[in-house]
Amino acid sequence: MSNFSRHIAIVGAGLVGSLLAIYLRKRGYRISVFERRPDMRSNRLDSGRSINLALSNRGIRALHEVGLEDLLRQNAIPMHGRMMHDVRGQLTYQPYGTDGQYINSVSRSGLNKVLMTEAERQGAQLHFEHRCSQVDLNNTTLTFQHDPTHTHAFDYIIGADGAFSAARGMMQFSDRYDFSQDYIEHGYKELTLPAGDGHVFQMEKNALHIWPRERYMLIALPNPDATFTCTLFFPFEGDPSFATLATPQAVSEFFKNQFADIADRMPHLQDEFFANPTGSLVTMRCYPWVRNRTLLIGDAAHAIVPFFGQGMNAGFEDCRVLNDLLTQYSDRWEDVLPAFQQLRKPDADAIAQLALDNFVEMRDLVADADFLLRKKIEARLHQLYPSQWIPLYSMVTFHDNIRYSDAYAIGQRQKKIMDRVMATPGIAQTWESVNFESIVNQLN
Amino acid sequence: MSNFSRHIAIVGAGLVGSLLAIYLRKRGYRISVFERRPDMRSNRLDSGRSINLALSNRGIRALHEVGLEDLLRQNAIPMHGRMMHDVRGQLTYQPYGTDGQYINSVSRSGLNKVLMTEAERQGAQLHFEHRCSQVDLNNTTLTFQHDPTHTHAFDYIIGADGAFSAARGMMQFSDRYDFSQDYIEHGYKELTLPAGDGHVFQMEKNALHIWPRERYMLIALPNPDATFTCTLFFPFEGDPSFATLATPQAVSEFFKNQFADIADRMPHLQDEFFANPTGSLVTMRCYPWVRNRTLLIGDAAHAIVPFFGQGMNAGFEDCRVLNDLLTQYSDRWEDVLPAFQQLRKPDADAIAQLALDNFVEMRDLVADADFLLRKKIEARLHQLYPSQWIPLYSMVTFHDNIRYSDAYAIGQRQKKIMDRVMATPGIAQTWESVNFESIVNQLN
Repeated sequence: MSNFSRHIAIVGAGLVGSLLAIYLRKRGYRISVFERRPDMRSNRLDSGRSINLALSNRGIRALHEVGLEDLLRQNAIPMHGRMMHDVRGQLTYQPYGTDGQYINSVSRSGLNKVLMTEAERQGAQLHFEHRCSQVDLNNTTLTFQHDPTHTHAFDYIIGADGAFSAARGMMQFSDRYDFSQDYIEHGYKELTLPAGDGHVFQMEKNALHIWPRERYMLIALPNPDATFTCTLFFPFEGDPSFATLATPQAVSEFFKNQFADIADRMPHLQDEFFANPTGSLVTMRCYPWVRNRTLLIGDAAHAIVPFFGQGMNAGFEDCRVLNDLLTQYSDRWEDVLPAFQQLRKPDADAIAQLALDNFVEMRDLVADADFLLRKKIEARLHQLYPSQWIPLYSMVTFHDNIRYSDAYAIGQRQKKIMDRVMATPGIAQTWESVNFESIVNQLN
Repeated sequence: MSNFSRHIAIVGAGLVGSLLAIYLRKRGYRISVFERRPDMRSNRLDSGRSINLALSNRGIRALHEVGLEDLLRQNAIPMHGRMMHDVRGQLTYQPYGTDGQYINSVSRSGLNKVLMTEAERQGAQLHFEHRCSQVDLNNTTLTFQHDPTHTHAFDYIIGADGAFSAARGMMQFSDRYDFSQDYIEHGYKELTLPAGDGHVFQMEKNALHIWPRERYMLIALPNPDATFTCTLFFPFEGDPSFATLATPQAVSEFFKNQFADIADRMPHLQDEFFANPTGSLVTMRCYPWVRNRTLLIGDAAHAIVPFFGQGMNAGFEDCRVLNDLLTQYSDRWEDVLPAFQQLRKPDADAIAQLALDNFVEMRDLVADADFLLRKKIEARLHQLYPSQWIPLYSMVTFHDNIRYSDAYAIGQRQKKIMDRVMATPGIAQTWESVNFESIVNQLN
């Protein structure tokens, strides 16, 4: 059977569903995409969803392979490092790499619209306001809420419908289906730092800004309109928490104490804090990702917390890996589907754990002297042995050919080695004269 | 408000739901129990569900407190130890304790029927063939499948509806709900060893029989009609597995090789093996157990694998603990519900882990010389220091006043100590002359 006669349904026209539609159209499949929301190209975006995202090398590689890299770079703002803000407003800048590496602040909706339009241009059929009410895993059919008496049959169904996937919901009730949803104690709130007079950025444009405060943190990413989207990651309970910031006055006071350098420049802080929803943060793990001819991909298969900036990148990498396997197995889906989940599940588990770990790093450690020394030593190791000692953040963010699971395992070894180095008495004074070669050799 | 005016719905008239109805009726509440199945007292039991269970001290204590201990002991068969069967049919007997401790083989349906009848005698209303289609956690109402236009309001709802609980299903879709379902690689198949001529037991009646085979095992529990219910715990995949035992001949041959001493005495082996369902084994964890005025209890809150024989006992203990808290807090449910989940969740997590660990012990170790030596040393420690060194199995099974979470923590400490003892060179020869006091003192 040629690809052209096979009809594949993709559930969800989000970032991953739309990119996957492009990949599969390029292979010649007939593609129908079903999205429960209205077309965002003619509607206002849902409020409260994250409005910008960090696109890094894995995502870029996946876009590059369908020729979209250049188009998407146009509206991206490069962020070359982290800018840390302490309670007194003092800044510390940490570049992401010595070779000018950077991540990109991109608009979620802008990127999604480009991908949808490209999918349609490639010949995919996008159907909006189609909410799945039934995914029949035995017969590979979909039923939609607005038309419950009709079922639609496909050769394959791919659930790219996010953390609360309908397709996964069906799988969950089948026998021997492993699944977990784990929320963290923190939620998030999006806030805006407006542009300054004359539409200028009020802080360094080309950086990811972090206010690390141990039990919580604020971050900010730049937007093309010279605003920053700030996200407060904050406990639901305890003191301070969303529970204790119950009045506009309490919010203002708290921001003035903790985020002194921007509190005065956020005129809509009080309104936004109470108008915007408080989001929760979940890790979803499941297995298998395949039941018969239905596959899960992206957040539907592995929703993760946002602290490594890899949710979208991991989903885009899924699309690229699936495409590679289709090539490798000459589009024999019966081989590709099991191969995909076997290959990709350890990587999904690794980035899920890395994302959880990085929250601790970002809020607890980034402002810590020991942490900064550790980073300095690691940077020197990388400078001296660039192909042998690659910092974990770099492996994950800038190396699109190192599997997440490998990065995780190497990172664990590096951590053990660095724990020993940091335990050396007087290391803060003597670090420049340690035997770097013997450190690197411990990796092998 | 007096208890008498409060109306509590219990979802599920299984073992835990029925016992809970008795406890709450005795406190004076108005109790309605809703069970999706027909009344088992006038119907044949579902085939394929486990037909006998091991009732031990925690369960007995919970029954004792509502005056049911004696009634239930009448049909119970005491099992004083484990009888291990090796591949040649050689037997090794291991008593559960030096003080005549025993567990009890009881009929699941027999016990359930007694509890239902007692619940009704105490004034609980039992409604059969009432399948919940909706549990409204905000309004504390239930809707049933056969009558979808009526909702029924209660003061409290308690979900005692098992591993696939409808009440938990609703909670799962509420925000920030932690949940996991984890299946093991093994399934189970129930088989029968018939009574011998003249209705006599064909093996030792007062023992739990085990055929440990490392990757799998067979166990057998006695029934009052002189039969044994045998359960094969066996991998779904691999060799051997349920996948490879695909023909009646393969089954017969496998049993003759592996379970030589009983294979010839199972005339219905081939028929039963293919007629009986292959069950799967899951651990369900969730939290919170309370949303507003709805509570989960028993398997609905913490379904575990059966290898410690504690599923029912843990559920019965839930009822006893809830009742104790109602007394302690003078029936103030707003205090009792949070106290119950906070107290009981660590115990549920502990017994879930212990049950998983015990599978490894039963199938891999029970036939191992090192394991038997370890048990011998532990038995001696217990004999010399009966209140200080209580073997883990005893703490869980025979001590109804040691919390599961404490038993787990003490068991971990004992394991570390015993690992060191077992690493002593020549321990097999010298164990009787080791310094037992110094071993026990390491526990403190």
